[in-house]
Amino acid sequence: MSQKGFTLWFTGLPCSGKSTVADAVAERLKKEGFKIERLDGDIVRQSLTRDLGFSEEDRNENIKRVTFVAKLLSRNEVGVLAAFVSPYRSIRQHVREETTNFVEVFVKCPLSVCEKRDVKGMFAKARAGIIKDFTGIDHPFEEPENPEITLETDKETIDESTEKVIKGLREMKLISEIRSSEAYSPEEEEEIKKRLESLGYL
Amino acid sequence: MSQKGFTLWFTGLPCSGKSTVADAVAERLKKEGFKIERLDGDIVRQSLTRDLGFSEEDRNENIKRVTFVAKLLSRNEVGVLAAFVSPYRSIRQHVREETTNFVEVFVKCPLSVCEKRDVKGMFAKARAGIIKDFTGIDHPFEEPENPEITLETDKETIDESTEKVIKGLREMKLISEIRSSEAYSPEEEEEIKKRLESLGYL
Repeated sequence: MSQKGFTLWFTGLPCSGKSTVADAVAERLKKEGFKIERLDGDIVRQSLTRDLGFSEEDRNENIKRVTFVAKLLSRNEVGVLAAFVSPYRSIRQHVREETTNFVEVFVKCPLSVCEKRDVKGMFAKARAGIIKDFTGIDHPFEEPENPEITLETDKETIDESTEKVIKGLREMKLISEIRSSEAYSPEEEEEIKKRLESLGYL
Repeated sequence: MSQKGFTLWFTGLPCSGKSTVADAVAERLKKEGFKIERLDGDIVRQSLTRDLGFSEEDRNENIKRVTFVAKLLSRNEVGVLAAFVSPYRSIRQHVREETTNFVEVFVKCPLSVCEKRDVKGMFAKARAGIIKDFTGIDHPFEEPENPEITLETDKETIDESTEKVIKGLREMKLISEIRSSEAYSPEEEEEIKKRLESLGYL
Protein backbone atom coordinates (compact mmCIF):
# COMPACT_ATOMS: atom_id res chain seq x y z
CA MET A 1 0.00 0.00 0.00
CA SER A 2 1.58 3.25 -1.10
CA GLN A 3 0.36 6.56 -2.41
CA LYS A 4 1.55 9.96 -3.46
CA GLY A 5 -0.17 13.19 -2.64
CA PHE A 6 -2.57 14.23 -5.38
CA THR A 7 -5.48 16.53 -6.13
CA LEU A 8 -8.36 14.88 -7.96
CA TRP A 9 -10.49 17.77 -9.18
CA PHE A 10 -14.05 16.84 -10.22
CA THR A 11 -15.56 19.56 -12.41
CA GLY A 12 -18.93 19.52 -14.16
CA LEU A 13 -22.48 20.86 -14.22
CA PRO A 14 -24.65 20.81 -11.09
CA CYS A 15 -26.14 17.30 -10.65
CA SER A 16 -23.61 15.79 -13.08
CA GLY A 17 -22.53 13.35 -10.35
CA LYS A 18 -19.27 14.92 -9.12
CA SER A 19 -19.77 14.40 -5.38
CA THR A 20 -21.39 10.98 -5.83
CA VAL A 21 -18.41 9.57 -7.71
CA ALA A 22 -15.88 11.42 -5.50
CA ASP A 23 -17.55 9.89 -2.41
CA ALA A 24 -17.44 6.41 -3.91
CA VAL A 25 -13.76 6.73 -4.88
CA ALA A 26 -12.91 8.17 -1.45
CA GLU A 27 -14.63 5.27 0.29
CA ARG A 28 -12.67 2.70 -1.73
CA LEU A 29 -9.36 4.43 -1.08
CA LYS A 30 -9.95 5.01 2.64
CA LYS A 31 -10.76 1.33 3.09
CA GLU A 32 -7.32 0.51 1.75
CA GLY A 33 -5.74 2.84 4.29
CA PHE A 34 -4.83 5.66 1.92
CA LYS A 35 -4.81 9.15 3.41
CA ILE A 36 -7.76 10.82 1.74
CA GLU A 37 -9.70 14.05 2.25
CA ARG A 38 -12.90 15.06 0.49
CA LEU A 39 -13.54 18.71 -0.24
CA ASP A 40 -16.73 20.04 -1.73
CA GLY A 41 -19.18 22.89 -1.33
CA ASP A 42 -21.21 21.30 1.44
CA ILE A 43 -18.08 20.32 3.37
CA VAL A 44 -16.36 23.71 3.27
CA ARG A 45 -19.41 25.96 3.52
CA GLN A 46 -19.51 26.05 7.32
CA SER A 47 -15.79 26.26 7.94
CA LEU A 48 -14.32 28.12 5.03
CA THR A 49 -16.72 29.85 2.68
CA ARG A 50 -19.99 30.68 4.33
CA ASP A 51 -19.63 34.36 3.44
CA LEU A 52 -19.56 33.61 -0.29
CA GLY A 53 -22.30 33.63 -2.95
CA PHE A 54 -22.37 32.64 -6.60
CA SER A 55 -21.04 35.68 -8.45
CA GLU A 56 -17.94 35.09 -10.57
CA GLU A 57 -15.84 36.86 -7.94
CA ASP A 58 -17.25 34.80 -5.08
CA ARG A 59 -16.90 31.54 -6.98
CA ASN A 60 -13.26 32.29 -7.65
CA GLU A 61 -12.64 33.26 -4.03
CA ASN A 62 -14.30 30.00 -2.99
CA ILE A 63 -11.96 27.97 -5.21
CA LYS A 64 -8.92 29.96 -4.06
CA ARG A 65 -9.55 29.06 -0.41
CA VAL A 66 -10.10 25.42 -1.30
CA THR A 67 -6.95 25.48 -3.45
CA PHE A 68 -4.89 26.59 -0.47
CA VAL A 69 -6.15 23.62 1.54
CA ALA A 70 -5.61 21.18 -1.36
CA LYS A 71 -2.10 22.55 -1.87
CA LEU A 72 -1.06 21.92 1.73
CA LEU A 73 -2.63 18.46 1.87
CA SER A 74 -1.41 17.20 -1.51
CA ARG A 75 2.19 18.26 -0.91
CA ASN A 76 2.12 16.27 2.33
CA GLU A 77 1.19 12.96 0.68
CA VAL A 78 -2.55 13.23 1.19
CA GLY A 79 -4.94 12.45 -1.66
CA VAL A 80 -7.53 15.22 -2.06
CA LEU A 81 -10.84 14.59 -3.84
CA ALA A 82 -12.47 17.94 -4.54
CA ALA A 83 -15.85 18.28 -6.25
CA PHE A 84 -16.79 21.78 -7.39
CA VAL A 85 -18.72 23.02 -10.43
CA SER A 86 -15.70 25.34 -10.97
CA PRO A 87 -17.01 26.57 -14.32
CA TYR A 88 -14.01 28.69 -15.40
CA ARG A 89 -10.95 27.30 -17.17
CA SER A 90 -8.73 30.00 -15.73
CA ILE A 91 -9.47 29.11 -12.12
CA ARG A 92 -9.04 25.38 -12.77
CA GLN A 93 -5.69 26.22 -14.33
CA HIS A 94 -4.85 28.10 -11.13
CA VAL A 95 -5.61 24.99 -9.05
CA ARG A 96 -3.46 22.90 -11.41
CA GLU A 97 -0.51 25.23 -10.91
CA GLU A 98 -0.85 25.46 -7.14
CA THR A 99 -1.38 21.82 -6.14
CA THR A 100 0.66 18.61 -6.29
CA ASN A 101 -0.23 15.96 -8.91
CA PHE A 102 -3.35 17.72 -10.14
CA VAL A 103 -5.77 15.43 -11.99
CA GLU A 104 -8.72 17.06 -13.74
CA VAL A 105 -11.77 14.79 -13.79
CA PHE A 106 -14.39 16.08 -16.20
CA VAL A 107 -17.77 14.78 -15.08
CA LYS A 108 -19.53 15.02 -18.41
CA CYS A 109 -23.28 14.80 -18.50
CA PRO A 110 -25.79 16.49 -20.83
CA LEU A 111 -27.60 19.46 -19.32
CA SER A 112 -30.97 17.78 -19.95
CA VAL A 113 -29.96 14.76 -17.83
CA CYS A 114 -28.58 16.93 -15.00
CA GLU A 115 -31.77 18.95 -15.03
CA LYS A 116 -33.91 15.81 -14.85
CA ARG A 117 -31.93 14.62 -11.79
CA ASP A 118 -32.28 18.03 -10.08
CA VAL A 119 -31.38 16.57 -6.66
CA LYS A 120 -32.04 19.71 -4.63
CA GLY A 121 -34.62 21.35 -6.87
CA MET A 122 -32.10 24.02 -7.85
CA PHE A 123 -32.62 23.76 -11.61
CA ALA A 124 -36.34 24.32 -11.15
CA LYS A 125 -35.60 27.43 -9.08
CA ALA A 126 -33.09 28.66 -11.66
CA ARG A 127 -35.60 28.14 -14.50
CA ALA A 128 -38.16 30.08 -12.48
CA GLY A 129 -35.65 32.90 -12.00
CA ILE A 130 -35.61 32.45 -8.21
CA ILE A 131 -31.88 31.62 -8.30
CA LYS A 132 -29.59 33.71 -10.49
CA ASP A 133 -26.22 32.78 -12.04
CA PHE A 134 -26.94 29.06 -12.03
CA THR A 135 -24.38 27.16 -14.08
CA GLY A 136 -25.94 25.62 -17.20
CA ILE A 137 -29.00 27.88 -17.09
CA ASP A 138 -27.92 31.53 -16.96
CA HIS A 139 -24.22 31.03 -16.21
CA PRO A 140 -21.64 29.46 -18.54
CA PHE A 141 -19.69 26.25 -17.98
CA GLU A 142 -16.33 26.18 -19.76
CA GLU A 143 -15.66 22.52 -20.56
CA PRO A 144 -12.15 21.19 -19.83
CA GLU A 145 -10.02 20.96 -22.97
CA ASN A 146 -7.57 18.29 -21.83
CA PRO A 147 -8.92 16.58 -18.72
CA GLU A 148 -6.86 13.64 -17.46
CA ILE A 149 -10.05 11.63 -16.91
CA THR A 150 -13.51 12.01 -18.43
CA LEU A 151 -16.56 10.36 -16.91
CA GLU A 152 -19.86 10.10 -18.76
CA THR A 153 -22.33 9.71 -15.96
CA ASP A 154 -25.33 9.46 -18.26
CA LYS A 155 -23.84 6.30 -19.82
CA GLU A 156 -21.83 4.75 -16.96
CA THR A 157 -22.95 3.33 -13.62
CA ILE A 158 -21.46 4.88 -10.46
CA ASP A 159 -19.32 1.74 -10.10
CA GLU A 160 -18.00 2.10 -13.65
CA SER A 161 -17.11 5.76 -13.15
CA THR A 162 -15.46 4.89 -9.83
CA GLU A 163 -13.34 2.16 -11.44
CA LYS A 164 -12.32 4.54 -14.21
CA VAL A 165 -10.96 7.03 -11.66
CA ILE A 166 -9.14 4.36 -9.66
CA LYS A 167 -7.64 2.90 -12.85
CA GLY A 168 -6.48 6.39 -13.81
CA LEU A 169 -4.80 6.94 -10.43
CA ARG A 170 -3.00 3.60 -10.79
CA GLU A 171 -1.86 4.33 -14.33
CA MET A 172 -0.51 7.70 -13.23
CA LYS A 173 1.30 5.81 -10.43
CA LEU A 174 -0.37 7.92 -7.75
CA ILE A 175 -1.63 4.86 -5.87
CA SER A 176 -0.50 1.25 -5.72
CA GLU A 177 -2.75 -1.68 -6.65
CA ILE A 178 -5.94 -1.95 -4.57
CA ARG A 179 -8.41 -4.74 -4.02
CA SER A 180 -11.77 -4.89 -5.72
CA SER A 181 -14.66 -3.61 -3.63
CA GLU A 182 -16.02 -7.17 -3.14
CA ALA A 183 -12.79 -8.50 -1.61
CA TYR A 184 -13.45 -7.56 2.06
CA SER A 185 -14.71 -10.04 4.63
CA PRO A 186 -17.29 -8.85 7.19
CA GLU A 187 -14.53 -8.94 9.87
CA GLU A 188 -12.32 -6.72 7.75
CA GLU A 189 -15.19 -4.33 7.09
CA GLU A 190 -15.66 -4.04 10.86
CA GLU A 191 -11.96 -3.46 11.47
CA ILE A 192 -11.79 -0.84 8.73
CA LYS A 193 -14.80 0.95 10.18
CA LYS A 194 -13.14 1.13 13.60
CA ARG A 195 -9.89 2.47 12.14
CA LEU A 196 -11.67 5.16 10.16
CA GLU A 197 -13.74 6.18 13.17
CA SER A 198 -10.59 6.52 15.28
CA LEU A 199 -9.24 8.88 12.61
CA GLY A 200 -12.36 11.02 12.94
CA TYR A 201 -13.54 10.19 9.44
CA LEU A 202 -17.03 8.87 10.08
CA MET B 1 12.52 9.42 12.06
CA SER B 2 8.85 9.22 12.90
CA GLN B 3 6.14 11.67 13.80
CA LYS B 4 2.47 11.93 14.57
CA GLY B 5 0.19 14.60 13.29
CA PHE B 6 -0.08 17.48 15.75
CA THR B 7 -1.19 21.09 16.07
CA LEU B 8 1.28 23.34 17.87
CA TRP B 9 -0.69 26.48 18.63
CA PHE B 10 1.41 29.54 19.53
CA THR B 11 -0.70 32.14 21.32
CA GLY B 12 0.47 35.43 22.81
CA LEU B 13 0.53 39.21 22.51
CA PRO B 14 1.61 40.89 19.26
CA CYS B 15 5.43 40.94 19.10
CA SER B 16 5.72 38.29 21.81
CA GLY B 17 7.77 36.15 19.41
CA LYS B 18 5.19 33.57 18.28
CA SER B 19 6.13 33.48 14.59
CA THR B 20 9.86 33.77 15.27
CA VAL B 21 9.94 30.68 17.48
CA ALA B 22 7.45 28.80 15.27
CA ASP B 23 9.69 29.48 12.25
CA ALA B 24 12.77 28.26 14.11
CA VAL B 25 11.04 25.07 15.28
CA ALA B 26 9.64 24.46 11.78
CA GLU B 27 13.09 24.81 10.23
CA ARG B 28 14.61 22.28 12.63
CA LEU B 29 11.80 19.77 12.04
CA LYS B 30 11.76 20.16 8.24
CA LYS B 31 15.49 19.53 8.12
CA GLU B 32 14.88 16.18 9.77
CA GLY B 33 12.33 15.29 7.11
CA PHE B 34 9.21 15.73 9.23
CA LYS B 35 6.07 16.85 7.39
CA ILE B 36 5.48 20.34 8.70
CA GLU B 37 3.24 23.26 7.72
CA ARG B 38 3.37 26.76 9.14
CA LEU B 39 0.18 28.76 9.45
CA ASP B 40 0.04 32.34 10.57
CA GLY B 41 -1.67 35.61 9.73
CA ASP B 42 0.75 36.62 7.00
CA ILE B 43 0.62 33.17 5.41
CA VAL B 44 -3.16 32.82 5.26
CA ARG B 45 -4.11 36.44 4.60
CA GLN B 46 -3.89 36.16 0.78
CA SER B 47 -5.41 32.74 0.41
CA LEU B 48 -7.89 32.35 3.21
CA THR B 49 -8.77 35.43 5.23
CA ARG B 50 -8.21 38.61 3.27
CA ASP B 51 -11.82 39.70 3.80
CA LEU B 52 -11.40 39.75 7.59
CA GLY B 53 -10.57 42.56 10.02
CA PHE B 54 -9.90 42.61 13.76
CA SER B 55 -13.33 42.68 15.37
CA GLU B 56 -14.08 39.81 17.76
CA GLU B 57 -16.32 38.25 15.10
CA ASP B 58 -13.69 38.52 12.37
CA ARG B 59 -10.92 37.19 14.61
CA ASN B 60 -13.02 34.17 15.46
CA GLU B 61 -13.91 33.58 11.80
CA ASN B 62 -10.19 33.82 11.00
CA ILE B 63 -9.33 31.15 13.56
CA LYS B 64 -12.21 28.95 12.43
CA ARG B 65 -10.90 28.83 8.86
CA VAL B 66 -7.39 28.11 10.06
CA THR B 67 -8.74 25.44 12.40
CA PHE B 68 -10.34 23.64 9.47
CA VAL B 69 -6.97 23.52 7.69
CA ALA B 70 -5.12 22.43 10.85
CA LYS B 71 -7.70 19.72 11.47
CA LEU B 72 -7.27 18.17 8.03
CA LEU B 73 -3.48 18.35 8.13
CA SER B 74 -2.99 17.11 11.70
CA ARG B 75 -5.27 14.08 11.25
CA ASN B 76 -3.17 13.11 8.23
CA GLU B 77 0.12 12.94 10.13
CA VAL B 78 1.30 16.44 9.35
CA GLY B 79 2.71 18.67 12.08
CA VAL B 80 1.06 22.10 12.03
CA LEU B 81 2.75 25.12 13.64
CA ALA B 82 0.21 27.91 13.89
CA ALA B 83 1.02 31.33 15.31
CA PHE B 84 -1.95 33.59 16.02
CA VAL B 85 -2.60 36.13 18.76
CA SER B 86 -5.91 34.23 19.28
CA PRO B 87 -6.78 36.23 22.41
CA TYR B 88 -9.95 34.34 23.44
CA ARG B 89 -9.91 31.19 25.55
CA SER B 90 -13.14 29.95 24.01
CA ILE B 91 -11.79 29.95 20.46
CA ARG B 92 -8.53 28.26 21.51
CA GLN B 93 -10.67 25.61 23.20
CA HIS B 94 -12.49 25.21 19.89
CA VAL B 95 -9.18 24.58 18.10
CA ARG B 96 -8.22 22.05 20.79
CA GLU B 97 -11.43 20.12 20.26
CA GLU B 98 -11.25 20.14 16.47
CA THR B 99 -7.61 19.20 15.82
CA THR B 100 -5.41 16.18 16.44
CA ASN B 101 -2.80 16.30 19.24
CA PHE B 102 -3.35 19.96 20.07
CA VAL B 103 -0.47 21.54 21.98
CA GLU B 104 -1.01 25.04 23.36
CA VAL B 105 2.22 27.05 23.43
CA PHE B 106 1.83 30.18 25.51
CA VAL B 107 4.37 32.72 24.30
CA LYS B 108 4.56 34.77 27.46
CA CYS B 109 6.15 38.19 27.33
CA PRO B 110 5.34 41.37 29.30
CA LEU B 111 3.38 43.96 27.36
CA SER B 112 6.15 46.54 27.92
CA VAL B 113 8.72 44.27 26.19
CA CYS B 114 6.39 43.49 23.28
CA GLU B 115 5.71 47.19 22.88
CA LYS B 116 9.42 48.00 22.85
CA ARG B 117 10.01 45.44 20.07
CA ASP B 118 7.07 46.81 18.01
CA VAL B 119 8.32 45.10 14.83
CA LYS B 120 5.82 46.65 12.43
CA GLY B 121 5.10 49.89 14.30
CA MET B 122 1.64 48.63 15.20
CA PHE B 123 1.80 49.39 18.92
CA ALA B 124 2.68 53.01 18.15
CA LYS B 125 -0.33 53.23 15.83
CA ALA B 126 -2.57 51.59 18.44
CA ARG B 127 -1.35 54.03 21.14
CA ALA B 128 -2.05 56.90 18.75
CA GLY B 129 -5.58 55.56 18.17
CA ILE B 130 -4.91 54.96 14.46
CA ILE B 131 -5.53 51.22 14.90
CA LYS B 132 -8.47 50.08 17.00
CA ASP B 133 -8.97 46.78 18.86
CA PHE B 134 -5.25 46.10 19.19
CA THR B 135 -4.57 43.25 21.61
CA GLY B 136 -2.80 44.45 24.74
CA ILE B 137 -3.76 48.10 24.20
CA ASP B 138 -7.51 48.38 23.75
CA HIS B 139 -8.38 44.72 23.31
CA PRO B 140 -8.06 41.99 25.96
CA PHE B 141 -5.75 38.96 25.87
CA GLU B 142 -7.05 36.02 27.86
CA GLU B 143 -3.99 34.14 29.09
CA PRO B 144 -3.99 30.33 28.74
CA GLU B 145 -4.79 28.59 32.02
CA ASN B 146 -3.15 25.23 31.34
CA PRO B 147 -0.84 25.54 28.34
CA GLU B 148 1.21 22.44 27.50
CA ILE B 149 4.29 24.62 26.96
CA THR B 150 5.12 28.11 28.20
CA LEU B 151 7.88 30.20 26.63
CA GLU B 152 9.22 33.33 28.29
CA THR B 153 10.69 35.19 25.39
CA ASP B 154 11.87 38.13 27.50
CA LYS B 155 14.13 35.73 29.46
CA GLU B 156 15.01 33.05 26.92
CA THR B 157 16.97 33.23 23.67
CA ILE B 158 15.23 32.09 20.49
CA ASP B 159 17.36 28.93 20.59
CA GLU B 160 16.29 28.18 24.17
CA SER B 161 12.61 28.64 23.36
CA THR B 162 13.04 26.48 20.26
CA GLU B 163 14.65 23.68 22.28
CA LYS B 164 11.87 23.88 24.86
CA VAL B 165 9.25 23.27 22.17
CA ILE B 166 11.19 20.40 20.58
CA LYS B 167 11.76 18.80 23.98
CA GLY B 168 8.03 19.11 24.66
CA LEU B 169 7.15 17.41 21.38
CA ARG B 170 9.54 14.56 22.18
CA GLU B 171 8.18 14.12 25.71
CA MET B 172 4.64 13.99 24.35
CA LYS B 173 5.92 11.36 21.89
CA LEU B 174 4.78 13.40 18.91
CA ILE B 175 8.21 13.26 17.27
CA SER B 176 11.16 10.87 17.56
CA GLU B 177 14.64 11.97 18.62
CA ILE B 178 16.21 14.63 16.38
CA ARG B 179 19.76 15.84 15.95
CA SER B 180 21.03 19.06 17.45
CA SER B 181 21.09 22.00 15.06
CA GLU B 182 24.91 21.90 14.82
CA ALA B 183 25.04 18.27 13.65
CA TYR B 184 24.70 18.89 9.89
CA SER B 185 27.66 18.91 7.52
CA PRO B 186 27.68 21.51 4.69
CA GLU B 187 26.94 18.65 2.23
CA GLU B 188 23.93 17.59 4.25
CA GLU B 189 22.71 21.18 4.45
CA GLU B 190 22.89 21.37 0.65
CA GLU B 191 21.03 18.07 0.25
CA ILE B 192 18.35 19.16 2.71
CA LYS B 193 17.91 22.44 0.87
CA LYS B 194 17.36 20.61 -2.42
CA ARG B 195 14.83 18.24 -0.89
CA LEU B 196 12.86 21.07 0.69
CA GLU B 197 12.88 23.03 -2.55
CA SER B 198 11.57 20.02 -4.47
CA LEU B 199 8.68 19.90 -1.99
CA GLY B 200 7.85 23.51 -2.74
CA TYR B 201 8.80 24.67 0.74
CA LEU B 202 11.39 27.37 -0.02
